[in-house]
Amino acid sequence: MSSGVAQAVPPFHGNISFNAQHAPFGAFFSFTCGHFGTRGGFGLQIGKPGNQDLYIGVKDGDRYSDAPLKVLPFYEGAAAANEAARYDVEREAGPAEQNVKPKVVAYAKDQIRRHYGWATDRSVTDNLEFTIYTPFGNVPSPEPNETDANGPAAEAELRYRLLPAVVATLRVDNTAGRTTKTGLFALGFRDKGLRLLDGVLGGALGFALRDEMGFAARVVGGDAFPIMRWAPDVGLSDPNPVHLLGNCPGVGFEVPPGEERTLQLVFGVYLDRLVTTRLEGRYFYTRYYANLTDVLNRGLESFDRLVDDATQKDRALVDSSVSPDQQFLIAHATRSYYGSTQLLDVAGQPLWVVNEGEYCMMNTLDLAVDQVFWELEHHPWVVRNLLDTFVHHYSYVDEVKDAKTGKLKLGGIAFCHDTGAHNQFSPFGHSSYELPHLMGCFSYMTAEQLCNWCLIAATYAVKTGDAEWICQNLHTIDACLTSLTNRGGDAGFCQYESSRCGERGAEITTYDSLDRSLAQTRANVYMATKTWATYLGLTRLLERDLPDRAVLARRQAERVEERVLAQAGPDGVLPAVFERDNPGHGSRILPAIEGLIYPLVWGDESALQSRLANALRCHTLALLRDPQRRNVFADGGIKLSSTSNNSWMSKIALFQHICRVALNADDDADIRNLFAVADAAHVCWQTDGSGYWACSDQFVSGVAKGSRYYPRVITAALWLQAINTSASERVQIGKRLLSSGKAEAR
Amino acid sequence: MSSGVAQAVPPFHGNISFNAQHAPFGAFFSFTCGHFGTRGGFGLQIGKPGNQDLYIGVKDGDRYSDAPLKVLPFYEGAAAANEAARYDVEREAGPAEQNVKPKVVAYAKDQIRRHYGWATDRSVTDNLEFTIYTPFGNVPSPEPNETDANGPAAEAELRYRLLPAVVATLRVDNTAGRTTKTGLFALGFRDKGLRLLDGVLGGALGFALRDEMGFAARVVGGDAFPIMRWAPDVGLSDPNPVHLLGNCPGVGFEVPPGEERTLQLVFGVYLDRLVTTRLEGRYFYTRYYANLTDVLNRGLESFDRLVDDATQKDRALVDSSVSPDQQFLIAHATRSYYGSTQLLDVAGQPLWVVNEGEYCMMNTLDLAVDQVFWELEHHPWVVRNLLDTFVHHYSYVDEVKDAKTGKLKLGGIAFCHDTGAHNQFSPFGHSSYELPHLMGCFSYMTAEQLCNWCLIAATYAVKTGDAEWICQNLHTIDACLTSLTNRGGDAGFCQYESSRCGERGAEITTYDSLDRSLAQTRANVYMATKTWATYLGLTRLLERDLPDRAVLARRQAERVEERVLAQAGPDGVLPAVFERDNPGHGSRILPAIEGLIYPLVWGDESALQSRLANALRCHTLALLRDPQRRNVFADGGIKLSSTSNNSWMSKIALFQHICRVALNADDDADIRNLFAVADAAHVCWQTDGSGYWACSDQFVSGVAKGSRYYPRVITAALWLQAINTSASERVQIGKRLLSSGKAEAR
Repeated sequence: MSSGVAQAVPPFHGNISFNAQHAPFGAFFSFTCGHFGTRGGFGLQIGKPGNQDLYIGVKDGDRYSDAPLKVLPFYEGAAAANEAARYDVEREAGPAEQNVKPKVVAYAKDQIRRHYGWATDRSVTDNLEFTIYTPFGNVPSPEPNETDANGPAAEAELRYRLLPAVVATLRVDNTAGRTTKTGLFALGFRDKGLRLLDGVLGGALGFALRDEMGFAARVVGGDAFPIMRWAPDVGLSDPNPVHLLGNCPGVGFEVPPGEERTLQLVFGVYLDRLVTTRLEGRYFYTRYYANLTDVLNRGLESFDRLVDDATQKDRALVDSSVSPDQQFLIAHATRSYYGSTQLLDVAGQPLWVVNEGEYCMMNTLDLAVDQVFWELEHHPWVVRNLLDTFVHHYSYVDEVKDAKTGKLKLGGIAFCHDTGAHNQFSPFGHSSYELPHLMGCFSYMTAEQLCNWCLIAATYAVKTGDAEWICQNLHTIDACLTSLTNRGGDAGFCQYESSRCGERGAEITTYDSLDRSLAQTRANVYMATKTWATYLGLTRLLERDLPDRAVLARRQAERVEERVLAQAGPDGVLPAVFERDNPGHGSRILPAIEGLIYPLVWGDESALQSRLANALRCHTLALLRDPQRRNVFADGGIKLSSTSNNSWMSKIALFQHICRVALNADDDADIRNLFAVADAAHVCWQTDGSGYWACSDQFVSGVAKGSRYYPRVITAALWLQAINTSASERVQIGKRLLSSGKAEAR
Repeated sequence: MSSGVAQAVPPFHGNISFNAQHAPFGAFFSFTCGHFGTRGGFGLQIGKPGNQDLYIGVKDGDRYSDAPLKVLPFYEGAAAANEAARYDVEREAGPAEQNVKPKVVAYAKDQIRRHYGWATDRSVTDNLEFTIYTPFGNVPSPEPNETDANGPAAEAELRYRLLPAVVATLRVDNTAGRTTKTGLFALGFRDKGLRLLDGVLGGALGFALRDEMGFAARVVGGDAFPIMRWAPDVGLSDPNPVHLLGNCPGVGFEVPPGEERTLQLVFGVYLDRLVTTRLEGRYFYTRYYANLTDVLNRGLESFDRLVDDATQKDRALVDSSVSPDQQFLIAHATRSYYGSTQLLDVAGQPLWVVNEGEYCMMNTLDLAVDQVFWELEHHPWVVRNLLDTFVHHYSYVDEVKDAKTGKLKLGGIAFCHDTGAHNQFSPFGHSSYELPHLMGCFSYMTAEQLCNWCLIAATYAVKTGDAEWICQNLHTIDACLTSLTNRGGDAGFCQYESSRCGERGAEITTYDSLDRSLAQTRANVYMATKTWATYLGLTRLLERDLPDRAVLARRQAERVEERVLAQAGPDGVLPAVFERDNPGHGSRILPAIEGLIYPLVWGDESALQSRLANALRCHTLALLRDPQRRNVFADGGIKLSSTSNNSWMSKIALFQHICRVALNADDDADIRNLFAVADAAHVCWQTDGSGYWACSDQFVSGVAKGSRYYPRVITAALWLQAINTSASERVQIGKRLLSSGKAEAR
């Protein structure tokens, strides 16, 4: 159908059968749909798509007509059979005989256009248009002093941003029709405990699953009617449209010939209880909304603003300089990031959590370090909140193992991999992930997490100028420098293993299921540049208040730089692991340059022009121009390590951004073209390799095998120059920060 | 192994592979296990078995030994392969690769003895003995005035009875062994959110799923250790026995040679929130227990008493006069009844709910009428509570349809089929089940539910002598007589349909998925005798305060009696439906006599010696002696209607009880034998036809097809003469009630 409103977003050019994780801010809730033939809908605190069949469609005639209901293919079985499967409900069957197949027909793929914008997801057929809106934006700090200081406007804005709901519209255009059409939105639940929301929604219809999730619906300028049977078509035509034992609630509406109607939908959730253990927290939104029906009513009330905000975001992305492939990846990642977010109220204080996609580990620090660029742009207070959580509850002090002498030496402060999993905060000082006695997956990430905390802190400080926070945490920052130095030995970086690894274990990196080239921490070039950047960050953090320590930090950075430079081969390639007898020595890894992202976002021109940066540029160009194409998959996608088929999309995005902006690698037309081909391949990884799992991070030869439904791909938003100040402006901010006093900074 | 304690309960003589629904009082929670090769464990508010693999076993050697772990076959896959399936955890696999098969071996069926008592369920092998204890008994009223009046002792007793936990023991006997053995109890969860309960259980180990369910374990006089990996054997032997990302928590213990050890286990639940909507309620146990760990600690504290109470119940059943088959059915039914019970606190007042098995409809009135005999024996206040709930919120007033004239006439008060489903109270005055415009399943049960409420009220009054309750509800009781009379026309019973059925619909009975012989209300002999009994009950309720109305009630009973007597054929058989052109006219139904249960429990000798009773005796004997065996299945099980393969165990139990006690039908050796064969068949229905679903009610040719996991089979406990006063004593109570004043009665 032709759209009633101007379409900012052109039709998606790829495979349109993929799930998107439509989510509000901080509710750990997604309304997922888009993948053909599988279930989705409401998913609350689960790290995967919901479990409802979605019936979104239209039929010719009034609600009682015999015409088949033609629906979008967002239900189990839709992909297999494009025809209506018709079953009679067995006569004289008891309530157990509830699983009847509905009399519905799914639209074929070529009958649907999908407009996948940054904040709208619109499926269009000849007769209907279904759109989900997920506006996002700056969220004011909920810290009491800050919100109060910003007054009632900030309070109202925070309330708006915390609404735990997603809105949608179903438009049926019958302006050219000669007979009535009937539109329908219905959800086939598998869970039990459905109810009709009677008399609690002003002017709208609605259903809920217990008191936890539900939807409200209304037709502006028209009528709607409720249904709830065991199949959507039964609810339309049966004399009893609603049975309280039904599992398929929905709302229908008739559209007279010559007219059009739009059904407005609000999908809301509400958990009115402690949802986490140990650090016992409830959702922060419970401060602003009384219950589920309040959420639904406020969603209806804010409907127009939500739609407008989403449309503006769409426009911003379409008008940006990035390609359609890149736009898709950014839009896809944005949704999955928000679907993993969770803002808690713990003992009256906000506590920020990003859940680790399908694994639901909480605040995984090696994800946080990558998400920090987006967060500092939109809600920088969550970064400070996370830094504090780790200092207060999830830091520890270890020793380090000297492999040569077998002796334990001084280690220092370090940070846990995560703060728990599936809403269960782990024992303080311990992650849910890490175990001793291991060489691979589930070992400790001590050195990398120490770097991560420092890098987040430095980036937070540069972006916000929050000198007071630095001052309050100076002793911790100083301890980090000691700890990092103690772990580095002569090389300055990662020569020892944490005593937490036990006698036999060795530290790993965030690339935990890759081979030694990236999974081994010790003597790894990826860790080397990351440690170098960490020392530069510590230099910034310490320069004003502890200048002698800052000098040490800078000297350590130089020591690491020298060590890396000494490793470059005659072809300019750096080995992945500096140990000659290590299986990773011959690997060629692109994330060697990852540490450059920090000087880039800090505006540290001298670091970007350093000898190390230059060596990394040579290394990268050698790998990208490799005639054997050892760092490219057959489909053109980027292969982070030449010796593994495991690749991480979030890290590829970082790599590409550094190449383009810090190394100017795409001055080279071949590389520019290589990246364009790669972008197209990465789109296919998501749509074809991760169609059910929405946005995923870890791909094995283009198929999502792990880290699915994942927040971290939000690094792709760096392509928009997410830190929207110029490099020179950033240099100015950095200088100001380092010379200023507290009053000026905050 | 030889038991350390005297075994009151002999080994079960049938198929031991069946689930049992181990449950405390009023928590809507069961710990289900016993069926081979399927999952069970914790099931909370779900109306079906839980979803955990149970690993309960022992191995030779210490915890690290290579010997296979030999376990009871209570996990998925156990039935298929009796050998250990061995898989290595894939190296370098991410957290998604969690589904590894454990290295365990299941005991074969012939290696296990099962002692299935009234309140203990003990599985015994050569090396271990696993026992679950579910004591039950009298529960004091939680009504504030009554509990206060009965003082602190009643308060303490109520607290004990409301403990939302089930306890168990795992005993490993190594007294004859020469090497250490290691015992283990572990649960393989599919749900996410597991945690170790560290530092909150005094002297015990424990795990929980979120803050909702968990278990505590300790070895008296010995040590135990925790495990939590993705398979039980990994937790025993791996250097890291506990990983917070594991899904298989458990507790192990080593048993030195020459010794024995017993692991004590408490399975507890706690929901600390509103769990129902509309009538918003929380669990009543939240008044007595602070949280999950409090429940677990109190379970440990009360362990010995719980075990003793269970053992006493075992002894009572073993010492009773009923056969081993009957003992099994009673024990099986008792567990399923309690697993469906739910005591809520709604606005400070107790509210009683029995959920309808797999359907989870709340307080289905046609179940309540059958459960009343058990409830009045053990906790009569729940009956009054239910009567009041229906009066206050789930009664309605209708008209009735005269099929001949097509006109509506005065109807009267009636009661809903249920009060909601799956914790969602339905709109007041409406059930979740009933719909208009239907002739079969899901139609209204208006007349039957009116009878049911009256019969429950009369039985409550006779049993408790609560004249005050009668007085307070006299207007309702009187209205019931008017309503019942209005529905009866000339015949005195069920000649009209409720206006709620709409123009086309017709009322049905509790036998909703049977054919017309039992599902049609109008002119049905089952409804006739039930209505007759209802008039007799109303006579009792009205006799003291409204004697004129009591006379009317008695006259109506006589009118029904005459109508039924006139239908008897020359062979003494009563047609199921009195309408000659009705398909049910030729059916021969055993529940024709169901109405006799009420005079029987009321001790109404004159009704039991009435002409109607005599006619029903002739009818029943004719059906039971039928040479064509039309009311017996091929396996010897009882077939309630000659024209349907649908049969309900709860109703069969009622039928048998009436036959034996009221009609003395088993004076006849053939019938006695027929019943014994039937009892054996009914045991097989449960163990073989409902092995997964624990105790079920509705069987189609011996297979549970509906009404599974069901509370109503508790009618079998009538076989123990559940109303444990003699018939003559009951007559005395009845007389006293009818002549006494308020003060005396309550």
